Amino acid sequence: MENVNLKKLAQTLNLSVSTVSKALQDSHEISQETKRRVLDLAKSLNYVPNPYASSLRRKKSKTIGVVIPEVTDSFFSLAIKGIESIVQPKGYHTLIYLTYESLAREQTILQEFQSGRVDGVIMSLSGETNRIGHLETLQAKGIPIVLFDRIFDEATMAQITTNDFESGYQATRHLIEQGCRRVAFLSLSDSLSISNQRLEGYKRALAESQIAAQDDLIVNGSREISQELIRTLLQSPQRPDGLLASVEKLAITAYQLCEELNLTIPDAVKIIAFSNLETASLLNPSLTTITQPAFDMGKAAAIALFRNLEKTYFDPQKESIVLPSLLVCRNSTRRCN
Amino acid sequence: MENVNLKKLAQTLNLSVSTVSKALQDSHEISQETKRRVLDLAKSLNYVPNPYASSLRRKKSKTIGVVIPEVTDSFFSLAIKGIESIVQPKGYHTLIYLTYESLAREQTILQEFQSGRVDGVIMSLSGETNRIGHLETLQAKGIPIVLFDRIFDEATMAQITTNDFESGYQATRHLIEQGCRRVAFLSLSDSLSISNQRLEGYKRALAESQIAAQDDLIVNGSREISQELIRTLLQSPQRPDGLLASVEKLAITAYQLCEELNLTIPDAVKIIAFSNLETASLLNPSLTTITQPAFDMGKAAAIALFRNLEKTYFDPQKESIVLPSLLVCRNSTRRCN
Repeated sequence: MENVNLKKLAQTLNLSVSTVSKALQDSHEISQETKRRVLDLAKSLNYVPNPYASSLRRKKSKTIGVVIPEVTDSFFSLAIKGIESIVQPKGYHTLIYLTYESLAREQTILQEFQSGRVDGVIMSLSGETNRIGHLETLQAKGIPIVLFDRIFDEATMAQITTNDFESGYQATRHLIEQGCRRVAFLSLSDSLSISNQRLEGYKRALAESQIAAQDDLIVNGSREISQELIRTLLQSPQRPDGLLASVEKLAITAYQLCEELNLTIPDAVKIIAFSNLETASLLNPSLTTITQPAFDMGKAAAIALFRNLEKTYFDPQKESIVLPSLLVCRNSTRRCN
Repeated sequence: MENVNLKKLAQTLNLSVSTVSKALQDSHEISQETKRRVLDLAKSLNYVPNPYASSLRRKKSKTIGVVIPEVTDSFFSLAIKGIESIVQPKGYHTLIYLTYESLAREQTILQEFQSGRVDGVIMSLSGETNRIGHLETLQAKGIPIVLFDRIFDEATMAQITTNDFESGYQATRHLIEQGCRRVAFLSLSDSLSISNQRLEGYKRALAESQIAAQDDLIVNGSREISQELIRTLLQSPQRPDGLLASVEKLAITAYQLCEELNLTIPDAVKIIAFSNLETASLLNPSLTTITQPAFDMGKAAAIALFRNLEKTYFDPQKESIVLPSLLVCRNSTRRCN
């Protein structure tokens, strides 16, 4: 099928391209009769405006870029639903870009955004991201960014977070109250602000109970490296009696390792995880979680972004909010006698 | 910050826009000295080519649209990884569009593609999609589509599937062999080709064992409707002793309902599901699955799409392949004495 463009419509109707364009935009300069002729033909030929050309004209893509590390974590798939709940009713499109925890990929994606492919960006940083020059460059080009969950402390942009410090503290306190004395902290990265906040909460809870934090109980690395480190920990004579997984995946890894090593949860080791897993209550044993307000965080990020897009003046500090997470106690941290 | 474009570069260097453009494209028409001057300035001003403008010129977006119903199902998140494993090394971008099982959304997304936002499309149909005029219109505009998993039988495009009929048959046979006599079939849609294939396999296995298929044991509807139908089934005096979930989510629903209704799996009811859940082996009890080759299906779809993009002639039949799924027996279908 031949592509139908303005020129083709104009030729067929023996009108100028500019008249056809104005007719399609319902301009008052064009007569009703001409508008009707143009619209009828456009409809019958299945004419679609070229968004590249019209984006150049109106400088709007009506598209929001969502840049996240992955979609296998249930936190992110829920957050996307929250973002879409705001973006769709506004007539915007959401495009999802995955960084797979790579800073280089994140930089490439943002570099591409500089040219106007998206009107604004909602993002959660990759595990490798330890600097944000690429974000600042994009913002300086007039494309606003809102960060959620995995933020960057010094960033001067709206940031939607949950109470990671308090949650790390609360999770650790819960393990101690259930009888744990050697609590390990498991994370995938030491550059992420959220991991650090959770780790600080963990340390505070230990200190309050006069338990010394031990470096060998703090695990971080890629999933493969973490798996080996957790295995070594669980096989050591001084193995931990409690695990706090800062990432859902590491809780799954820990469950798999406990099965492999014949360690009973919660008797031999108790496990709590930051997680939005729909199957948390169905696991054997059911998993105690810190459940993040994933949907609401995505929603809040989209609201902040549109406020930014619709205003000429925007105060990122005022748009930054902290939504609380929830401790849900289940059997993986049950007290054993 | 002011946007730097070709015109700005040309003005600053006192060259024509066309000379600057050719210099940036390393044309042999331009001297080394001029190229060096242009590149140095472009670099120092942080010049980025406008992809809308250059897309109009070269008519390539170097972008593949991936249109899927959702990302909360682990099948799709794994399939995306398979797609990216081919798309990324080719220097293309992947954009993910979610239909949330809505035909109307799917049509809107494809309508937008007509204007050249993407070079090709990989898609898995929404649960509502019972006609594919929107796909045919897009293909007729020269934008190739490859379907995977949720295909449309009469479609004349490359289709990557798994052996849904055989898997439905095998899953049902497995339940019968484990002692089930009243097997229910659970799905989210009756328009999807894969659901029908699986249902046919289910019926064949029942027939082979001289078990009459019963309409009241075949459940389909939205997740909410299915949940109520499954609840009613499980509470009826003639409740099923086996459930075959055609969708991962419905297995989770079934587990939740069994817990709520105090029905022990696998004693009171056995459950098998089409699923790529990473937690399948950790559930209580561990879930017997038909595991689809999700990563390989995504990969195969991307390979077929690039073959299509790179050739002028393309035979969709030849590119269509069927990859086998795998039955993984676990405790949710254990024989009870």
